[in-house]
Amino acid sequence: MRATLSVAIATLLTAATIGAPADAAQRETRIPDKAIATAAQLRETALASDLGYRITESLTTEVGPRLAGSEADARAVAWAVAKLKELGFDKVWTEPVTFPKWERRSESAQVVGRNMQPLHLTALGGSPAGTVEAEVVRFADLAALEAAAPGSLAGKIAFIDYKMERARDGSGYGPGSRVRSRGPSAAIRAGASAYLMRSAGTDSHRNPHTGITRFDEGLTPIPSAALAVPDAEQLRRLLERGPVKVRLALDCGWDGTYTSQNVVGEIRGSKKPEEVVLIGGHLDSWDLGTGAIDDGAGVGLTMAAAKLIGDLKQHPARTIRVVAFSNEEQGLHGGKAYAAKYADQVVRHQIAAESDFGAGRIYAYSSSAPEHAKAADAQIAKVLEPLGIAYTPGQGGPGPDVGPSAQNGVAWARLAQDGTDYFDLHHTPDDTFDKIDPQALAQNVAAYAVFAYLAASADGDFGSQPASPPTGTK
Amino acid sequence: MRATLSVAIATLLTAATIGAPADAAQRETRIPDKAIATAAQLRETALASDLGYRITESLTTEVGPRLAGSEADARAVAWAVAKLKELGFDKVWTEPVTFPKWERRSESAQVVGRNMQPLHLTALGGSPAGTVEAEVVRFADLAALEAAAPGSLAGKIAFIDYKMERARDGSGYGPGSRVRSRGPSAAIRAGASAYLMRSAGTDSHRNPHTGITRFDEGLTPIPSAALAVPDAEQLRRLLERGPVKVRLALDCGWDGTYTSQNVVGEIRGSKKPEEVVLIGGHLDSWDLGTGAIDDGAGVGLTMAAAKLIGDLKQHPARTIRVVAFSNEEQGLHGGKAYAAKYADQVVRHQIAAESDFGAGRIYAYSSSAPEHAKAADAQIAKVLEPLGIAYTPGQGGPGPDVGPSAQNGVAWARLAQDGTDYFDLHHTPDDTFDKIDPQALAQNVAAYAVFAYLAASADGDFGSQPASPPTGTK
Repeated sequence: MRATLSVAIATLLTAATIGAPADAAQRETRIPDKAIATAAQLRETALASDLGYRITESLTTEVGPRLAGSEADARAVAWAVAKLKELGFDKVWTEPVTFPKWERRSESAQVVGRNMQPLHLTALGGSPAGTVEAEVVRFADLAALEAAAPGSLAGKIAFIDYKMERARDGSGYGPGSRVRSRGPSAAIRAGASAYLMRSAGTDSHRNPHTGITRFDEGLTPIPSAALAVPDAEQLRRLLERGPVKVRLALDCGWDGTYTSQNVVGEIRGSKKPEEVVLIGGHLDSWDLGTGAIDDGAGVGLTMAAAKLIGDLKQHPARTIRVVAFSNEEQGLHGGKAYAAKYADQVVRHQIAAESDFGAGRIYAYSSSAPEHAKAADAQIAKVLEPLGIAYTPGQGGPGPDVGPSAQNGVAWARLAQDGTDYFDLHHTPDDTFDKIDPQALAQNVAAYAVFAYLAASADGDFGSQPASPPTGTK
Repeated sequence: MRATLSVAIATLLTAATIGAPADAAQRETRIPDKAIATAAQLRETALASDLGYRITESLTTEVGPRLAGSEADARAVAWAVAKLKELGFDKVWTEPVTFPKWERRSESAQVVGRNMQPLHLTALGGSPAGTVEAEVVRFADLAALEAAAPGSLAGKIAFIDYKMERARDGSGYGPGSRVRSRGPSAAIRAGASAYLMRSAGTDSHRNPHTGITRFDEGLTPIPSAALAVPDAEQLRRLLERGPVKVRLALDCGWDGTYTSQNVVGEIRGSKKPEEVVLIGGHLDSWDLGTGAIDDGAGVGLTMAAAKLIGDLKQHPARTIRVVAFSNEEQGLHGGKAYAAKYADQVVRHQIAAESDFGAGRIYAYSSSAPEHAKAADAQIAKVLEPLGIAYTPGQGGPGPDVGPSAQNGVAWARLAQDGTDYFDLHHTPDDTFDKIDPQALAQNVAAYAVFAYLAASADGDFGSQPASPPTGTK
């Protein structure tokens, strides 16, 4: 998961949808009883299946880390195509996604002088290369650095020592990720030579959290990195004793463009195959871990959910489309490319849901369903309820890669995962397969299977309609 | 903590002591009531003090990692001398300890071929440098590798995938550390080009566990390293799919000798200052973390315990001697040097106890007290009881650095720490100050203060007597 921008967008979208003119009563969406019964069986089948776990294991083991644009990006695409075919999807194809390529080559840092010792850090995605040895100036939070006078940090390293808070819904990541996205530009404005932050994470391990940053227009980028939490605390303790000089050496940077692929697989609908329920995750990961919770699990569990639907004697009316999005981490490139490509097919998208918040149990369901689809939405929630999932209409927003489609008017659903521990691992070397609980993952597969099957079986729509003005159409 | 060899030694010593001829009744050791009352007050003072925590913070923050023989070794010695003086110890000095010097310069590994990806590992202490690219052969445990036919691993990398078990008393480390100490020699005998092991640890983080290894006489050492637990599991999963080739590059090795120092500080006894109760920890650490639980805490808590005794209006009869031992990690060099230096002063050592098992709460007390000192031993246990410490006579052994002195006949005590989580951190980058619980550390200080004060106040001894034959005397 990249950022929480999508939540903000979603709030707007939800409001807009709720306020839409209601010709709802005339065409209320309902889900047939027979489909409800099938979904309940499907739920139990999925709970007893380890398919999602095995697919996630395959991706994270065989491909491993898959930084967008890296050698492993192409292997991940090939893996996804082969896996969808092996699973018997009716149609499998790829769609190009082009983006700037960023590389990490090496990185190190140490306190120099009388307290000489190494510090564990990692370059932020988008950081330029550079070696800087300078005194560190600590700021308690982003606001404090943004308040620093222009030029006041000349020849210094700016350090934001902000501690991200733990929360089930990941709400601590809003302020946490802003330190990453806005801190470097604030440091440059104050004249700093380099930027350090305490990782946007909730753990206490020597594993720094990377993630994309950006530099405001007109600023000259500076080397920017995140310290592991224990290292940020060590630096704070040292700074309490007096001036501290740090040497950091980052070798990384942008290098041309790369064309990867969104990988798409479909379980063909029995009656309205041209209409799709979209589920998916993102195929890329950061390079430090093997991208298990972010987002191998999202890819694995949605592939498994669709496959289990495909195994039913009778496919649902609409097509189940699984998308493994390209390069989510560095700017939703796959999600934006998808939205642009299908901008004129908004109404053909019944509803869309991306899983990109780990592999914890799903505890809440909500969607953008307008008034005329609320009864059907509640029907879905009812079949999800035995999984321990509460119905929370009006809450949350679409996953990051379906955000651009949602902006175009595609209806979205949210299957909210328990993210209490998500930011212990997120964007670190520790995001590895062993962190996934197979039972929790099966519960996710069951929830996605139920949701997708029922949405695809509904008589009526979930409110997808072209936004005004549409984006990306000719 | 280096190894559990000391436990085995201790078992022998305990048996020997228990079986010693008992002229006990003639000179039963007892602790005066007044001392018991003072110790109870001291216990509460220590529980309310953060001194041990602050000393540990100082060492781990200001010196950081302090690999024996490194630049930081000298800084650690200077720190210890300065800290003991600052705390007002009556006498502070150093004693030279010479040992071979091992250096870690760089290390990396990756799976090569179609599943190309990095693996997190760390060289074992004592490993030679070398770059090896070869197929990996997995063994479930040490016995399986030791059973491999000579030459059967020619041109291969041997990999022991043994999972160490978690236990409060650290008993899983026996078999775990044997994989480290004996695995490389077994690999060489089978003809392997390099040696890999799953870290001897109980965590699931990308932080490999280092530790000393050795090579049997007559064998040519090979590059030997430990994989982080998630990486060992990843390698196992890959091996389940077919042959796996790994490239590992270690730059490390022995380089001459180095002379460091045991650092000694004393709180002078009021009546028998020439007799000492020895408490301490080891000053060196592995280089990956900052040596907080291993063994900054041991140094910090014993310095604090002695200082709090020194703050009493009346010092106990005997001297409290704190020793910060040099280079425990690579072979008990400091403990052996101490034992050799004081081999003719065994009876002047009332009793000795080293803290080198982390910073968890102490849950049990025992000692080598012979029959004539058992009543006094029970008196100590009684004052420890309100700290949640059980009296477990006959169990355990001396800490590693007092092991050599115990072999010479010095009585020892064991204040057993809860090590349930110890091997999550032990010898990894994650052994940092933030892992220490201040309340648990204060409980340790209280226990050591009570123990040392009472042993130093006893009328009579705890059974120290020169072993036959003595070691290291002229």
